[in-house]
Amino acid sequence: MTLNESLFKYSLRLGDTSLILAQRLSEWTGHGPFLEEDLALTNITLDLFGRAKSLLEYAGKVEGKGRTEDQLAFFRTDREFFNALITEQANGDYAKTIIRQACIDCFDLLFYSELAKSKDNTLAGIAQKSVKEITYHKRHSFSWVIRFGNGTDESKQRLKKGFEEIWEYTGELFEMNAVDEVLIKEGIAVDLSTLKTNWTKEISELLQSAHLTMPEGTYMHTGSRKGLHGEQLGLILAEMQSLPRMHPEAKW
Amino acid sequence: MTLNESLFKYSLRLGDTSLILAQRLSEWTGHGPFLEEDLALTNITLDLFGRAKSLLEYAGKVEGKGRTEDQLAFFRTDREFFNALITEQANGDYAKTIIRQACIDCFDLLFYSELAKSKDNTLAGIAQKSVKEITYHKRHSFSWVIRFGNGTDESKQRLKKGFEEIWEYTGELFEMNAVDEVLIKEGIAVDLSTLKTNWTKEISELLQSAHLTMPEGTYMHTGSRKGLHGEQLGLILAEMQSLPRMHPEAKW
Repeated sequence: MTLNESLFKYSLRLGDTSLILAQRLSEWTGHGPFLEEDLALTNITLDLFGRAKSLLEYAGKVEGKGRTEDQLAFFRTDREFFNALITEQANGDYAKTIIRQACIDCFDLLFYSELAKSKDNTLAGIAQKSVKEITYHKRHSFSWVIRFGNGTDESKQRLKKGFEEIWEYTGELFEMNAVDEVLIKEGIAVDLSTLKTNWTKEISELLQSAHLTMPEGTYMHTGSRKGLHGEQLGLILAEMQSLPRMHPEAKW
Repeated sequence: MTLNESLFKYSLRLGDTSLILAQRLSEWTGHGPFLEEDLALTNITLDLFGRAKSLLEYAGKVEGKGRTEDQLAFFRTDREFFNALITEQANGDYAKTIIRQACIDCFDLLFYSELAKSKDNTLAGIAQKSVKEITYHKRHSFSWVIRFGNGTDESKQRLKKGFEEIWEYTGELFEMNAVDEVLIKEGIAVDLSTLKTNWTKEISELLQSAHLTMPEGTYMHTGSRKGLHGEQLGLILAEMQSLPRMHPEAKW
């Protein structure tokens, strides 16, 4: 795989992951448990949409076929999306949304802190901006996990159930393929294997604070690196893409 | 009506109007015609939620019964809401959402610019912050109206239809009752009758730029000042309030 092709696919993977998570979180806008939380979650959604836009814009530039971020977002099929599977999972209740977010925020902070040192200036720049945002996102999701875990029996049960439901999608975050291989050699991509120890340590400490334990199961879903997704993604795309596809030539 | 009671109802009216509009606009989050627009509209929604929160918090304080902004937002029935009817109307297509927004932004900029001089410091402070936000909102919606009006035949037709659908809800924005009377005397509230000439002038110029004309109809819906709403509001509240009402005693 050429360097350019790898960089295109890498940017897509990061952009898609942000975009689909933003799309999922946006389902909560106006439906949070209280106003303050509505504001917080909408802010996070906005950061993610912004990051997605920058990354997809860059992917289009790298590809060199004149595709804009909108064309990439709205005119690809699910098999052409590379978002991590964890982002397309249904929100479930608020506890599940929050524990998924905590797992992703923890990964993202480790990941983007490293990507900020990338030899690719555009990716490094996007990463530097993201680190600031994710620092806040993580504080938000982690504090909620602790609150749920130390709240009522029900909030703790919901948290536990939510965690069990998303656990099998966390392994994929660390998966690498030829794209990573090419880019790591060039000092562009992050070696994901170096992040796992810290991630596992932080999440297991978080669970302890919430009186939960790490699951024993080791089975992990996989597929998104090859564009293989669950039916969830098809539904998200149908909703997200319907308006732009109705007016593909619209000159707004 | 006492001064305190008037101030409570006035703050509710302004808070509810922001809240219900935010709720309506939030339906677009993640479903805008393109990414940039998703970001813009979500930003506007966020400003409106923020304003609603401040105003309802103040209403609760003025009332003095210990009700928080969340209790006011989530535990009142539609008959206790005072949002302007225009905000609860269905979004329709993007052109209708935008022309509604233009009518409201135009009103809000005139209104909050005046309220910023209120003798009530809290309202004046909220208004000063809002003026900055609305200046941006108005630039956004006005530029879209002009773009739709000068775009394709279809975009112009949609804009025209959207405007005709919301026109009958614009008159109510200028309606006053005993609440206003009490507060205008004290230099707290804005005399809405002084805004109408400028609003009509600006909107009619905007329509001209979009090759549309002002409707001739003079019938205007009314009711929200008395807590009388269409069935639309009931549906919005059902969705917005369901989660908090399921866990009314939740200690998060």
